[in-house]
Amino acid sequence: MPKEFPTVSPQGFHPFGELIGLEFTAIGEGRSRCELQVRDELFNPHGVLHGGVVYSMADTGMGGALYSLLEEKELCTTVEIKIAYFAAVKEGKLACDTRVIERRSRIAILESEVTGGDRLVAKALGTFYIYETR
Amino acid sequence: MPKEFPTVSPQGFHPFGELIGLEFTAIGEGRSRCELQVRDELFNPHGVLHGGVVYSMADTGMGGALYSLLEEKELCTTVEIKIAYFAAVKEGKLACDTRVIERRSRIAILESEVTGGDRLVAKALGTFYIYETR
Amino acid sequence: MPKEFPTVSPQGFHPFGELIGLEFTAIGEGRSRCELQVRDELFNPHGVLHGGVVYSMADTGMGGALYSLLEEKELCTTVEIKIAYFAAVKEGKLACDTRVIERRSRIAILESEVTGGDRLVAKALGTFYIYETR
Amino acid sequence: MPKEFPTVSPQGFHPFGELIGLEFTAIGEGRSRCELQVRDELFNPHGVLHGGVVYSMADTGMGGALYSLLEEKELCTTVEIKIAYFAAVKEGKLACDTRVIERRSRIAILESEVTGGDRLVAKALGTFYIYETR
Repeated sequence: MPKEFPTVSPQGFHPFGELIGLEFTAIGEGRSRCELQVRDELFNPHGVLHGGVVYSMADTGMGGALYSLLEEKELCTTVEIKIAYFAAVKEGKLACDTRVIERRSRIAILESEVTGGDRLVAKALGTFYIYETR
Repeated sequence: MPKEFPTVSPQGFHPFGELIGLEFTAIGEGRSRCELQVRDELFNPHGVLHGGVVYSMADTGMGGALYSLLEEKELCTTVEIKIAYFAAVKEGKLACDTRVIERRSRIAILESEVTGGDRLVAKALGTFYIYETR
Repeated sequence: MPKEFPTVSPQGFHPFGELIGLEFTAIGEGRSRCELQVRDELFNPHGVLHGGVVYSMADTGMGGALYSLLEEKELCTTVEIKIAYFAAVKEGKLACDTRVIERRSRIAILESEVTGGDRLVAKALGTFYIYETR
Repeated sequence: MPKEFPTVSPQGFHPFGELIGLEFTAIGEGRSRCELQVRDELFNPHGVLHGGVVYSMADTGMGGALYSLLEEKELCTTVEIKIAYFAAVKEGKLACDTRVIERRSRIAILESEVTGGDRLVAKALGTFYIYETR
């Protein structure tokens, strides 16, 4: 049985997620969706959304998607992620849809697409490591 | 003559940099160093620094390093970045050292290393696009 | 009008493609498909298909897909590619399906999926640079 | 004790390495160097060395560098590699220098630089998975 992702728990113990306004709207079966409202305080010096915010959606979304496949004693951590950007974002709401492409015992490969309205904003391909807590 | 990077200007118009506490301590000749003090509000659900914060240091640091090579009318934007993580971070100060590996007319390839004390925390390899403002 | 990709021309001037047995079976409208028959001489020391062969399918397939969108005077070159592997391959025929995700004036982002039968073997996400010949 | 890399054994059972003319000239302590003589049959349709050949140097070089750190029962496999290109190559000899940046129990991160003379041709950053044979 997939366990509940800590980020969406009522206790809300994801400080950075709260800082940037990231919210999961769906997690389960190796997939996740998280959303974020674009705000001025997330802008870079060019006056558009900082790429690190978009990246954070993908990284967090990957953690959530993979988390839904883990056993009770397992945790996961990001090994590496590549993200490519397609559009600058100035306003609106972004959604990040993530899926686990491949799950092996200790490794998973995941893919995220960040969209704003109908526009593809970024795409990410990442590797996570799965380990057991003691 | 390299132009001053807007992030370090006294006007301070890098909202996301301010939100996470990112500061440039050196920029010039295709290189940059930026630093960040680890704080609890930058943590992920596992109680360590969110990977998106480390990524944001690399992305911003690359922009700063490349900016030092641009002409007055040129601007740059992130095409893609890959980042690999080597260590979880719970406290202290991180430094991100970036250098332009290759500069062509419209493209640059950059590399960042994020360290905490003597420990290599992450390494990033990215592509930027250079364009002219009208 | 998209121009014909040199690789599939009757003159056959793609030496490395010939060396590894790579063939385009479709090119057009920002997409391509190329195929390759697995042979022992393409194996690595572990007795499975070398990852460099799978990568070469993606790299070449990206060139073909993008080529179909170029103007007569334009050429393209690989800036960077990330490839992730999902399965070792020992026999059979591989197909690499590629599509241009984003085309800007000087930059394109492309994605390739390599499959063997029903199995996803690898996925690649890459950046190409577009320039004009003089 | 690091074990000898199979590729450099006198039996020479690396078929793809032989096909493209790849040779290890040094392996040990988490590092490797391999070399390759540029030949016309390794060219792409543009008349320069195919990027897949340069990639294959990095992928193989990473395997060799990591192999030098493995125990007798361990093997490794490529999870993903990103490679960025800096220069087209038409002739001469290329060298690929690789080092293990980080070795954990099941994961390693490696970096390769491919050079031709004094020119940096490509740089790669990759992830390998380490497993035990039964």
